Amino acid sequence: MRVAIVGVGLIGGSVGMAARDRHGAEVVGVDARPEALEGALARGAIDEAAGDVSEVGEADVAVVAVPVDAVAATVRTTAKALPDAIVTDVGSTKTAIVDEVAEPNYIGGHPLAGAEVAGVENARADLFDGAIWYLTPRPGSPGLLYERLHRFVAGLGATPTAIAPGDHDRLMASVSHLPHVLANLLVLQAAEALGGERMPATGPSFRDATRVAGANPGLWAAIYGSNAEALVGQLDAAIGRLEDVRRALAGGESLEAWQEEAADRRRALLEAGLGGGPEGELRVSVPNRPGVVAELALALGQAGINISDMSLSPSADNSTGLITLWVDARHAQRAGELMAGLGHEVDEAG
Amino acid sequence: MRVAIVGVGLIGGSVGMAARDRHGAEVVGVDARPEALEGALARGAIDEAAGDVSEVGEADVAVVAVPVDAVAATVRTTAKALPDAIVTDVGSTKTAIVDEVAEPNYIGGHPLAGAEVAGVENARADLFDGAIWYLTPRPGSPGLLYERLHRFVAGLGATPTAIAPGDHDRLMASVSHLPHVLANLLVLQAAEALGGERMPATGPSFRDATRVAGANPGLWAAIYGSNAEALVGQLDAAIGRLEDVRRALAGGESLEAWQEEAADRRRALLEAGLGGGPEGELRVSVPNRPGVVAELALALGQAGINISDMSLSPSADNSTGLITLWVDARHAQRAGELMAGLGHEVDEAG
Repeated sequence: MRVAIVGVGLIGGSVGMAARDRHGAEVVGVDARPEALEGALARGAIDEAAGDVSEVGEADVAVVAVPVDAVAATVRTTAKALPDAIVTDVGSTKTAIVDEVAEPNYIGGHPLAGAEVAGVENARADLFDGAIWYLTPRPGSPGLLYERLHRFVAGLGATPTAIAPGDHDRLMASVSHLPHVLANLLVLQAAEALGGERMPATGPSFRDATRVAGANPGLWAAIYGSNAEALVGQLDAAIGRLEDVRRALAGGESLEAWQEEAADRRRALLEAGLGGGPEGELRVSVPNRPGVVAELALALGQAGINISDMSLSPSADNSTGLITLWVDARHAQRAGELMAGLGHEVDEAG
Repeated sequence: MRVAIVGVGLIGGSVGMAARDRHGAEVVGVDARPEALEGALARGAIDEAAGDVSEVGEADVAVVAVPVDAVAATVRTTAKALPDAIVTDVGSTKTAIVDEVAEPNYIGGHPLAGAEVAGVENARADLFDGAIWYLTPRPGSPGLLYERLHRFVAGLGATPTAIAPGDHDRLMASVSHLPHVLANLLVLQAAEALGGERMPATGPSFRDATRVAGANPGLWAAIYGSNAEALVGQLDAAIGRLEDVRRALAGGESLEAWQEEAADRRRALLEAGLGGGPEGELRVSVPNRPGVVAELALALGQAGINISDMSLSPSADNSTGLITLWVDARHAQRAGELMAGLGHEVDEAG
């Protein structure tokens, strides 16, 4: 396997190291900064260095890992230069990028992994172990390319999870960007509540809630900006909820039922986060047309069902195909129902 | 030393155990529930049991540890029944209680300690080790009683910290009650963002930010309610801040400076939380009148300076007194300036 990494920083370098270690891949690093390429070679993140994607020649997989405001243009250039490769990116928001890229060999991605530190000198082959890696296939994404990307990402140690770009951005706004905004708010407000005086040591709830306050200002300002629409939506919803709580409290109402509801939701979210039981195998017969794998993957992703592995085999006349999927055994029945609901014939094995 | 514990649950029982262990105190438990008293005796939290505070006889210290809505009435009864005792409570909000109690031998308190579990069967002698224990002396609080309470609390393993009741409630609204409200909000909003579907595993920022979501609904509804005024103020401020962020984001402005500000504030708060260096000793000559110790302690508390230990010695004719204070050596100079600013003569030793 030959892999191109476009942009060799912390994430790109870690993909390169993991691809060499886990897939035994030959990795070409592409970067306009010669010192970054030297660092990547020294770190063992890449086998070859190229100043431009036109020098790569061929690749099976290309991963674009440049800053979020340069992703769309870089993906387009890369997808054109490497038409046989599946091209993906690692940007933390997806709608804006996916909307700007028409090339069919591109499928967006976003690993939920990172570190406090930047730069290829901090790259690690195990950075993605156990991490969710979102993939945003589109209607029309070729099944074989999606399968190749899924296998590549799973092989790096991550858990590939299909999601629609808009759902991804709303989800990130809700579970990552809004928590960062609220952490800032708590810190600023506590500082003000003390009227500029020193703050006495506080309990663990404040420490936990403000751990990410003020994280990497340049990077986070770019992340907020790139997901502005979804984050504005989450802020509006948050303001509405706080106004409801304020009204209830000022009116002397008890918040017990509300606290109870939060307890229920938290329990449900924690349970949903569990995993790692036995696997169920499903065989699905599908028409052999572009987008059908993306459709299945998205339906399962939306139901919170991860595909641990998948395998595609076209029929002899190429008109239909058989997809074999492995999912958590507890969700195998629901997965079968969802795929039957899309009009496919399903055979549940194992 | 003889100590009365009025209300033997988790906190009262733990105070009893720590007082027996650390102070070698004789502890009388007072509770209207015979089974709670039996449990406290079995747990070794008390030496004697009484059904009513009138049966205690005498005590040096009385700690009222009943539910927050019963505190004020119980404190009044206790302070009248034990006029020679310093009476304190452990309620998590202070203004409402302090306003309702006129007895001069009462000084409010609030240990920042607790557990996921309730009941005397979970009481522990080390529950307060290293915890902040707020004390709310009033203008007029007798210095010797304040010193006795300070010493008692420090001896339990906690760090006594003087604070005005209103400041305490605003601080708690800001560093504890608001974080709980925002944790609930994040959980409810994430659940909604997923439209009722199962949620994929999320990053650590969400887990950290929602650890306290839905905590003990009965208890937390009572805490929100007892500090409604301060919490409404914090909610209004939070709504205002979110509206500012929303406006900036929707207008395409960068949030980098805001993120930077949060980083600065967080750093300052973390530094303020550090401690444990060498101690400085200060000797302050004061007129021997009620309230003077409270005044000093509050001035230091407001500046975020903890008093590690203190000792009071009245002069022979009882008209003036010498207070010796030990504080973190890094803050000794500032502490001296504050006390000189209050018109007292200060001698910095050690």
